Order: sequence, then C-alpha cells, then structure tokens
Amino acid sequence: MRQRVLDMSFVIVGSLALDTIVTPSERKERIVGGSCTYCSLAASFFTHPKIVGVVGKDFPQQTIQLFEKRKIDLRGLEVTDGKTFFWEGHYGCDPNQRTTVKLEMNAFADFRPTLPADYKKADIVFLANIDPELQENILRQFQNPKWVAMDTINHWIENNKAALLRVLEKCNLFFCNDEEVKLITQEVNLIKAGKRILEMGPSLVVIKKGEHGALVLGKNFVFGVLAHPCDEVVDPTGAGDSFAGGFLGYLDSARSTRQEVLRRAAVFGSVMASFAIEDFGIERFKSLTDSDVRKRFIAFKKMVSFKL
Amino acid sequence: MRQRVLDMSFVIVGSLALDTIVTPSERKERIVGGSCTYCSLAASFFTHPKIVGVVGKDFPQQTIQLFEKRKIDLRGLEVTDGKTFFWEGHYGCDPNQRTTVKLEMNAFADFRPTLPADYKKADIVFLANIDPELQENILRQFQNPKWVAMDTINHWIENNKAALLRVLEKCNLFFCNDEEVKLITQEVNLIKAGKRILEMGPSLVVIKKGEHGALVLGKNFVFGVLAHPCDEVVDPTGAGDSFAGGFLGYLDSARSTRQEVLRRAAVFGSVMASFAIEDFGIERFKSLTDSDVRKRFIAFKKMVSFKL
Repeated sequence: MRQRVLDMSFVIVGSLALDTIVTPSERKERIVGGSCTYCSLAASFFTHPKIVGVVGKDFPQQTIQLFEKRKIDLRGLEVTDGKTFFWEGHYGCDPNQRTTVKLEMNAFADFRPTLPADYKKADIVFLANIDPELQENILRQFQNPKWVAMDTINHWIENNKAALLRVLEKCNLFFCNDEEVKLITQEVNLIKAGKRILEMGPSLVVIKKGEHGALVLGKNFVFGVLAHPCDEVVDPTGAGDSFAGGFLGYLDSARSTRQEVLRRAAVFGSVMASFAIEDFGIERFKSLTDSDVRKRFIAFKKMVSFKL
Repeated sequence: MRQRVLDMSFVIVGSLALDTIVTPSERKERIVGGSCTYCSLAASFFTHPKIVGVVGKDFPQQTIQLFEKRKIDLRGLEVTDGKTFFWEGHYGCDPNQRTTVKLEMNAFADFRPTLPADYKKADIVFLANIDPELQENILRQFQNPKWVAMDTINHWIENNKAALLRVLEKCNLFFCNDEEVKLITQEVNLIKAGKRILEMGPSLVVIKKGEHGALVLGKNFVFGVLAHPCDEVVDPTGAGDSFAGGFLGYLDSARSTRQEVLRRAAVFGSVMASFAIEDFGIERFKSLTDSDVRKRFIAFKKMVSFKL
C-alpha cells in the first residue's frame, strides 16, 4: 500500500510551538504544538521529512527525541536562547469555533533561516502556516522543487494578502479550510471558490471542512473524502497540519502526483487528521502505529463504498 | 442497476404547495412545491409512488398531468374548493440560510384524509414534513408497513416535540438535517446526535448536510455520501424531499433493506437532491431522464473512489 524510500526529499517549513489549549472540558498548559510539529509527525508514517523551524530553550527535549525516533531530519531546526513560539486557543462546544486568545512570536520573530545544502534540492516543499513573507523568503532558497504546497490562516489573509497571493502563485497545491477559501476568493460556493484558487497559481486545491471531510479540486477532477466519524473530538488543534502531513508524506513515498495517487494521499490526510484530534496536542502520535494507520485507511474505504 | 416492479407499495404523505421563492438573483411567484411533490417526482424515477395530500383549485392542472405522466398514483390526492398550501421562503447568498417569510396552511388546515383501501397495505410509508399530529393520525391507518420513514422541520421540533417524538418512536428511518438533529438531541456532534436518534425508535438515521452530503447511521454501520459538486445552486427548495424520494423510491424498487441496498439508496438520494437544486421548483424533474440519473450515480461513484 505504501513504501518507505531511501532518497527522501520532503521539506516542511513551519512553526514549532507551545500551546495552551482550552476546551469546554479541559485546560492544557504549554503543551507541544505548531504546524511543522503536527505535519512532520503525521508525514513520518510515510517518509522521513526534513523540517525547518525554530524553538527556544524551553522546548521539551522529549519532543526532540520523539522527532528523532520518528526519523525526522532535524538539521533545519534552530534552537535559540529565546522562548518558543506560544499560542493560546479556546474551543467552544462546537470544535469548529476557535478563538485565539494569545499569540507570542518569540523565537519566530527574527527567524530567517539558511537552509542546509541538501534541503535545497527538495522535491516536495510544504510551507505550513507562518507569515507569508517568511514563506516567500524560504521558498526562494529551494533550487527546483517539483511540488510546492502551502497552508495559511485567516490572520494572514486579512493582514498580508499581497504576500500570500505572491506565494500562492508559485504553489502547486493550496491547503485551506472552507472559511479561508471563502475569505480569499469572496465566493460562498466552495466549488466556485476552489476553481478561483486554481486560477491563482495552484493546479490542485484541498479544501478542508472539519467534520465534513475535504474536497480535492484539480483542473479536471473533483475528489471528495469524508472525515472519520468521531463522536469525541478531544482537541481539534493540528488536524489541518496532520492532514497536510499525511497527504504530502504519502505523495513523497509514492513519488508520483498521478490522480490515483492524489486521491489516496487525500484519504491518508484525512486518516492522520482523524488521529490527531483523538487526544490533546501530539499525544496520539506517540502511540500510533503503521498498523493503526492502515486499518483506518481501510475503514475509510468501507465507509464510502457502494456498488453500482 | 435498478428495476421497476409491478407490485408497488410506497406511499408518500406530505404537502403539495405553491411557493414563492426569493434568491439573491431571482424571485419566483407561486410556483409548485411541497414535500410530497418533490419526493414523489424524485421517487418516480425508481418506482410508482402513491401520494396522500391535498390541493386547492388553484393548483396547476399541468402539474397533475406531470404526476400522471410519471405514473404517480393520485387516488390519495384530495382537491378542495379552498386554496393550496402556500409558503414564501427567502434564501441568502449562502443557500443554507433560509427564512420563512409567510406560511398559509389553507387546504391543509382541515386535512384529515381517509386512505384508499390498498394504500393501507403499503410496505413503505414516508411521512414527509407536515404537522406531526397529522403524521401520527395518518400512520395509524396503515395496516402493517414494513418500513416507516419520516422527515420534519425545526418548526415542529420547537412547537410540538411531544407529538414528533411519538411518531419518531414508530419509525424505522428518520430523515433530518444537521440543524434538526442537533435541535432534537441537544448534541453538537453529529455522530453522537445520530446515535441518540437510534435510541429513540429508528434503526436508521439519515443526516442531510446540504453541500456536505449526508451521513447514514445504522446500529452497526456508518455510510457517508457526498453532495454532487455544484457551483450554481439555483433553488435549494426541495433538496431534502428529493433526497428522501430517491432513497425510498430506490428501496421500494429493490425490495430490500440490506446494508448494500441502503448505501445505494443514499447515493440515489443525493443524486436526486443534486438535480432538484439545478432549477427553480420542480422544473428540473420535467426534463430529467433515467439516463441522466444513471450517469450522475456513476459520477458519484467516481468522485469518492480510491484504490487500496
């Protein structure tokens, strides 16, 4: 079904964070999070991603060891004297209602990385959610990536749309959620909104819809993937990044962007997102096995299958 | 793929209406609508449904002829001297935002039908959206239906929940949308909400989610069906009723409620809903062919297919 290859070439650029998460039933203080963290852990079930990011001295050594155990390439990870990027988010009873209560850039404020030489030759680059100007700056350092993907959040669409659109133009794949795609395109219909994105640069757009799954729109095809039916969302944080990690990690291992591969990639994305939300932070990835991933992939197949 | 059978046994009880529909781009005055109308037209592509309802003298003869052409059994349709049930609804830019502006019960106010003798032997009964006390009253007249399905709207959940729950208890299948199931169960999580419904009587619940498709929950299975990707929703009215018509019409033609049949039924439901919204009122059903239905069913299959 999937394979690990020796010649890895997938680089993830994004945040590593300490998050304070408040849900209607619990509060977790300064647990490990960040777009790059979730994405690389999810991707590590398919390939050996290389990461680019920065943490402070307060970032747990245990998580670094987890990265190492999962064979994530950490040569692009800077450790500074300052503090790690911090985010506090509160969720309502509806896990789609999220409020950012606090955001401290900390180590990320002055992060201007220089990529290790062999990172620059990456085939797949994922610009996870960070300041689009930083995404742009880092993207320039790659020599000839075959497949560039990006993610963003409302904050950047509202505050630095110009830079965001410049990065988007250079992307093959745009990951967004339903709110974000409507905000960028000013279209309420998701299909129309997705098609507008395809006019802005990318040849593929993945619109994540939380409990409703995701839509994949290409120039000539539409693929729909459901979310795993979950009656207990413990912590929705990182679902989108885990989706991207599963998607791109699988793509890297398959070494192809044929439609058939993209479809499977989207299902693996949804599978990895479904695990991420089962526990706080990155907890679920600590015990997750290849066999769990494979079983859920098969469950997804069953969930949508019907005969002609 | 599907078959027409001679021994029909599917009765639909619901409204036949004149609707004034206002969308952001158009206004249509007093066009034909109603839950029974949409449902029976959709079902007529699979079987020959029998309908129970009432219209006034102002109901277009042309629509009666369309029913006859589609081989819908009209012996349970009363024509009174009064006026046809009237509804005025306005849609926002987001087609899920609907406001009821006017509602006149008219002929439905005193509707207490006595069913034709052979209607009473129906195998499948669909209690489409009407006053749950009327649903209850009519349901009593059936001798031994094998499969009873119902639909409702927020109005009855808010204003006559007691009667609604009594009908629900006697149902095998409950059709609802995401808002309604949350309102009845007070659960925000759709899977939890669906499971609660399964404790209230039905052995199956279909949660319709508009552009996000539908979830089918049984005691031992979950099936997810997408909506047809549509970039131009002309008029969302009747989508839910058309879903039920496709679902139950197919079930009646297949004469089985095996899981495999229920899955296909849900896809046919989604297919028929996707046609309903392509034009105002029942317009789309006038030109629709069996071949169109079959083609879209196959497109649905393609949209969700991926290989292990």
